[in-house]
Amino acid sequence: LLSMAPHALLVDLCHLLPAHDILAAAFLLYQATPFFPCDSIHLVVVDPGVGSDRRALAARTACGTFVAPDNGVLSLVLDCSEVSTMVCLNAPEYWRSAVSATFHGRDIFAPVAAHLANGLSVSSLGSPLVDPTRLPLTAPDFGSPDSIIAHVLHVDHFGTLVLDIRADQLPPRPVFELTGHEIRGLWRTYSDAVPGQLIAYVGSTRNHLEIALTYGQAAQHTGASVGTSVFIRSEDR
Amino acid sequence: LLSMAPHALLVDLCHLLPAHDILAAAFLLYQATPFFPCDSIHLVVVDPGVGSDRRALAARTACGTFVAPDNGVLSLVLDCSEVSTMVCLNAPEYWRSAVSATFHGRDIFAPVAAHLANGLSVSSLGSPLVDPTRLPLTAPDFGSPDSIIAHVLHVDHFGTLVLDIRADQLPPRPVFELTGHEIRGLWRTYSDAVPGQLIAYVGSTRNHLEIALTYGQAAQHTGASVGTSVFIRSEDR
Amino acid sequence: LLSMAPHALLVDLCHLLPAHDILAAAFLLYQATPFFPCDSIHLVVVDPGVGSDRRALAARTACGTFVAPDNGVLSLVLDCSEVSTMVCLNAPEYWRSAVSATFHGRDIFAPVAAHLANGLSVSSLGSPLVDPTRLPLTAPDFGSPDSIIAHVLHVDHFGTLVLDIRADQLPPRPVFELTGHEIRGLWRTYSDAVPGQLIAYVGSTRNHLEIALTYGQAAQHTGASVGTSVFIRSEDR
Repeated sequence: LLSMAPHALLVDLCHLLPAHDILAAAFLLYQATPFFPCDSIHLVVVDPGVGSDRRALAARTACGTFVAPDNGVLSLVLDCSEVSTMVCLNAPEYWRSAVSATFHGRDIFAPVAAHLANGLSVSSLGSPLVDPTRLPLTAPDFGSPDSIIAHVLHVDHFGTLVLDIRADQLPPRPVFELTGHEIRGLWRTYSDAVPGQLIAYVGSTRNHLEIALTYGQAAQHTGASVGTSVFIRSEDR
Repeated sequence: LLSMAPHALLVDLCHLLPAHDILAAAFLLYQATPFFPCDSIHLVVVDPGVGSDRRALAARTACGTFVAPDNGVLSLVLDCSEVSTMVCLNAPEYWRSAVSATFHGRDIFAPVAAHLANGLSVSSLGSPLVDPTRLPLTAPDFGSPDSIIAHVLHVDHFGTLVLDIRADQLPPRPVFELTGHEIRGLWRTYSDAVPGQLIAYVGSTRNHLEIALTYGQAAQHTGASVGTSVFIRSEDR
Repeated sequence: LLSMAPHALLVDLCHLLPAHDILAAAFLLYQATPFFPCDSIHLVVVDPGVGSDRRALAARTACGTFVAPDNGVLSLVLDCSEVSTMVCLNAPEYWRSAVSATFHGRDIFAPVAAHLANGLSVSSLGSPLVDPTRLPLTAPDFGSPDSIIAHVLHVDHFGTLVLDIRADQLPPRPVFELTGHEIRGLWRTYSDAVPGQLIAYVGSTRNHLEIALTYGQAAQHTGASVGTSVFIRSEDR
């Protein structure tokens, strides 16, 4: 990057995601990129399908430009950002001359990001792409009158469970139940509970509900992981 | 940060501290910040009490400006730096407009640090604070004529034990004893001992004594952790 | 570094190598430094012999300048880069005034790198050094007519095994055998195999062969580690 765009300012978002975990990367981008300057270029290299016929893409959106494999890693950011241009990366003149089959982050995405940092437009990088790959994400099931079924969308490095339901979608006086554990009501923050208590609260990521074990690991404590169902009812019923 | 202070230079000190470990963060700041330029702004987000009534503070000192939760994380740096101004962060006009209850690093500390980077004075950020929270730190016990009781202050990522006693506080020809292990005398550096040997030496952090297992993990080997007592006597007695 | 060379641009290559692992550091430099700008200064602090009589060095090469302990960590980069100047760091006027016995990264290498960033020449830093320490690296054994014996040179954080043999050194239609596992033929990339399959392919690092377990950890699956023999024959024989 710096060889081609010496003025570029590099910020590492995270190098500690679990290997091959496209959904964890999708969540991280959804969580963090709204807080970057709009002219940021986000280069994503969680790419287990590297070298296969999976496409790669560049997308210009209202909250930054993305360069990534087309493997669903942008599923969540594309849902909530206006996209002005999106192309399939198929203009090899902007790549490294020798492209390996197993490291497109170095050989394709980084040179492309450097060209973008130098002012090249997204549309120069390839032909229009209108059907980006989407991950099969869970969504809350509001079907039953007595109970909403939400799901764990993400487990962060504190072991905290981020759910796929947001504050405005909750019933009044909610009761949460997952893997045999019940949580009554909403807390405001961790220290409103005693250490070792399982709590539910509105998290700092776009009003998604979260479940944490104060001073501990909720994932380990409950055995929950991404996809685990969380049953939510109202205490009023 | 870069949205508000695009010229700021970001340096990551560490993202690998154990969760909720305020003392480990306090030690890291004590160890590293003297080697940063004096006009650095140190933004600290080890903050298990986020959203509670714990205060937050900004402090201008002879070795840099700090923005942090008032949870004791500055205990060690404030002990050894001259503080010129210290305020409680209670001027919300310098915060993000929407402040979550669980991520003040993003919503309060980062905007405040950006304002400081743009030249705002510490005193603008809130009202004076004179009683910052201190951690209940151990100190060596020099009470007995035959033996000093020092303690493990920090365990680093090599498993090395940093003690709360400094070189100038040692008796001549010291003998160390912890968890049934005895170490006679001082080494100069790791490679002066054979691999797998437990050694004591004057470390590189402000002359604190350290105990290491060469090419191994002293913490694991001895079972010691933060707070473990280390008995020190002189071989001369 | 920034105290002495405020204009310097810092890029962290890696802070996650196993403790004391000089060979892992040597491989990382071999893998990554060709992709940095030629005027980069690479500061290396994997230094278990710190404070002993091991020398320290600075080397100006066709692909960057290196400041490092003379413990073999440059073995691989020096094999493939033209060296124009190499010196032993023995001019203390370019060091921190107080030098600890256990942290030369801070007290010697960083000040020296800052001086280099400020334009000082490598030759000013000490006297010429012509016999840098080399690690006892493995090399493929081509002695037998029926079988080449290659070795694991590096295990990356995906558990992938990088071998000490390159693509141009392979027999036609190669068959690999290690720790009782046989792999027939070469794959192009991970996703050409089914998840959980052990595959061999030409990796992205200088055409070295690699062995991976798709969506898994080859090192754990095979029990192989650095130095493990890999027997390679041709299916044609």
